Amino acid sequence: MFLPRVIGYVRSPYKSTQEVPKGLGAQHDAEGVLDILQELEPGLTDIEGFSHLIVLWVFDRQISDGKAEFELLGTPASDDRPHGVFATRLARRPNPIGLTIVELLRREGTRLHVRGVDMLDGTPLLDVKPYLSSIPAEKLRRGWLAEAEARRDQ
Amino acid sequence: MFLPRVIGYVRSPYKSTQEVPKGLGAQHDAEGVLDILQELEPGLTDIEGFSHLIVLWVFDRQISDGKAEFELLGTPASDDRPHGVFATRLARRPNPIGLTIVELLRREGTRLHVRGVDMLDGTPLLDVKPYLSSIPAEKLRRGWLAEAEARRDQ
Repeated sequence: MFLPRVIGYVRSPYKSTQEVPKGLGAQHDAEGVLDILQELEPGLTDIEGFSHLIVLWVFDRQISDGKAEFELLGTPASDDRPHGVFATRLARRPNPIGLTIVELLRREGTRLHVRGVDMLDGTPLLDVKPYLSSIPAEKLRRGWLAEAEARRDQ
Repeated sequence: MFLPRVIGYVRSPYKSTQEVPKGLGAQHDAEGVLDILQELEPGLTDIEGFSHLIVLWVFDRQISDGKAEFELLGTPASDDRPHGVFATRLARRPNPIGLTIVELLRREGTRLHVRGVDMLDGTPLLDVKPYLSSIPAEKLRRGWLAEAEARRDQ
């Protein structure tokens, strides 16, 4: 396997997990910055052309002694019943890697100004990739999440 | 940081990178299996409800002595000019993590039968997450990739 290396840090308005909007209908329109390490700047060449980016980051508050504590079943904020961790975006997963899709607003050197951050301030970044295509809405099934929404709307 | 752990392996028809469709207009409709470790089976609870999954995996052929060799600029198969690695899906990135969105066809215990694999057979898996929402096509800008397509179609 490989040893993950930090490529930068998130600048976010959220200082604690309690501040991050969670649960059904949570909106993620907070603005923040992906602050990439100076020496990696050439890696950002041409990124301005993409409207949306996939950001991989570390749930670093879940780690102690290089090990992530994880649970195979957990109850997300969006439901009142447990689901398998791989059917959720919960933090306590075997590899503590988070994924967020953000809108790229502008780039200033190694600082990517983005909308849609749900990470905590100071979160270490692992990767940034262009978001290239979408699944058409009519082809997407959203499992327990759609069911939880339906229960809420009853 | 954390030490990545393998959660399973990809079963794919592709044995070498040369066999994986690449470049403009490449179709990824190959079927394969995400073979999750038996002891993680509870983590798959309720995953059947989702039509599409985000799969994180390791570019394991890029690693030697725990280090990934990377290049900040590279020329993808879909273009004839170089771009920053974070504006591409190229393999030689600071963290050798690949991302593929697959369609979940069915689950048999710890075996997830999926369509859309572009990984090599035996690729180690890091995470599986539900695909929850799409960026509407009219809001998506695809940077150099759209330009490369336009040049091809001239």
